[in-house]
Amino acid sequence: MARSAGPLTAPYLKLKAEAHHDLGSTATNDAIIQLVLIALHFLSSDCTTVPLKSRVPGKRYYSYALKTNTSAISRPVNESLFEPAESVISTQWKNRSTLTSGELTKMVYTMATAYSVASDLFDRNNKKGPATYLEQLIGHIFACELGKNPTKNATLPLEKGIKVRMTMDFIFDLGKNRPKVHLPVKSSTRERVVQAWAHQRLLDKAYGEGVYKAILVIHSETKLDLRTLEVVEIAVPDQWLAYQSLLATMERIYYLDPPDRYLALSEKYPIIQLRQFGDFFSECKDLLK
Amino acid sequence: MARSAGPLTAPYLKLKAEAHHDLGSTATNDAIIQLVLIALHFLSSDCTTVPLKSRVPGKRYYSYALKTNTSAISRPVNESLFEPAESVISTQWKNRSTLTSGELTKMVYTMATAYSVASDLFDRNNKKGPATYLEQLIGHIFACELGKNPTKNATLPLEKGIKVRMTMDFIFDLGKNRPKVHLPVKSSTRERVVQAWAHQRLLDKAYGEGVYKAILVIHSETKLDLRTLEVVEIAVPDQWLAYQSLLATMERIYYLDPPDRYLALSEKYPIIQLRQFGDFFSECKDLLK
Repeated sequence: MARSAGPLTAPYLKLKAEAHHDLGSTATNDAIIQLVLIALHFLSSDCTTVPLKSRVPGKRYYSYALKTNTSAISRPVNESLFEPAESVISTQWKNRSTLTSGELTKMVYTMATAYSVASDLFDRNNKKGPATYLEQLIGHIFACELGKNPTKNATLPLEKGIKVRMTMDFIFDLGKNRPKVHLPVKSSTRERVVQAWAHQRLLDKAYGEGVYKAILVIHSETKLDLRTLEVVEIAVPDQWLAYQSLLATMERIYYLDPPDRYLALSEKYPIIQLRQFGDFFSECKDLLK
Repeated sequence: MARSAGPLTAPYLKLKAEAHHDLGSTATNDAIIQLVLIALHFLSSDCTTVPLKSRVPGKRYYSYALKTNTSAISRPVNESLFEPAESVISTQWKNRSTLTSGELTKMVYTMATAYSVASDLFDRNNKKGPATYLEQLIGHIFACELGKNPTKNATLPLEKGIKVRMTMDFIFDLGKNRPKVHLPVKSSTRERVVQAWAHQRLLDKAYGEGVYKAILVIHSETKLDLRTLEVVEIAVPDQWLAYQSLLATMERIYYLDPPDRYLALSEKYPIIQLRQFGDFFSECKDLLK
């Protein structure tokens, strides 16, 4: 049973059903943009913006709040990455093959954020809804670009003929002579992100390195202090270096709102290949051939 | 700032200070038993028990509730493992070298559970306090048995002379020609337990397999449905087999309240060495020589 999210409940349930039935389908495509447009409309008509104090150099953030209750605010929105105009997003989504990487990143950031922000205003404790939605959005985009639907079940052969099944994030089988794709999708990496590297290590050890290529997609690393209205960005570069060097290798890490500290880390240590999400569209063919 | 837990707040803060200063000290020893006796006294004088519906074959559970508010109940207590009598625990703790493995398991189960249960009755959302306390109790017992205090910092050498520091669970350095010990302590394994195996893999890869021996200590796997008052036990044997076969090896997994499904798994697959916690006291010398 989905928690109530006002005008978003019905289109969210519709998307859930379509995504479950066929993640890469036109019906899922339509359900996603429908939900996003309803969320953007709700934000522009029923909500107001609340400025936040950004402690992140070079980035400005605001929250949304219901006009009828400005004390309860949403998660932070990156001003330069969020496009509130429905018509812009609707047109871009239809013509996404014509967009630059920066435009694609901004479009997907907006689509990923609009529903989550609106959901916050109905129930700030509902973390599962926005997380599931982000998975569906990114999973759909991958399914379209790769021409295949993913599964969430991995079968791992152990010793002595034992096989175990494990639920993972998305797994795409692209067919003979092509790498398989392991796609973890996370709202942020503060908690449990080690799981993405650990799952990749399970796949590497069970099937051999290189059989599965790992691509980690993350929304952002912002943290809002509801008391002071300050936004900070959390980065744990040492942990990432350790995971990437000693546990398993993520072929790419894509961010919708890339933290500058991670971009700098990636530049200094090429073992970490971090990009804005829009780059995926142009490089995915080369990456996964 | 610790959250209020009535008569437990002051002795909890005392333990926290002593444990931080010297985990294996007599002062920490005294602070632990002091806190446990205050918790047991509080449970017997101010609380009543509420029977639960056990869905775990062969185990019976109850909760505690304040006499003044029986609608808010604590986490479940395993009836056959919990010794409510202060005098019994006080005497056993002093003379623990004379106890059997079963008696030791019951004593430590009681000591681990008494504070957490009492804390629940003041603030059911305070998960950090009980988790930290469990770490301190188990860490203290290991520090006493191993004759060394642990650290929580691991330094991991990566390629090209890069070193990173990571916070882990307890790490014991037993000196030259002896294995080092990696000791993760968890209330249950439902969430984030993959981290324990992943950290061990980091240590294995950075230092070579066998340099660090991993011992995982877990309280229990019970889950209470507050609505129906039913207690179930969650086990994920396939995940465990995969982690233990493909990620890293836990030398031992000790439970204060061992789930029968895991005991059966351990019997069927000797790669998983699972024991009741009391066994640690008699086998630790052999295990870590």
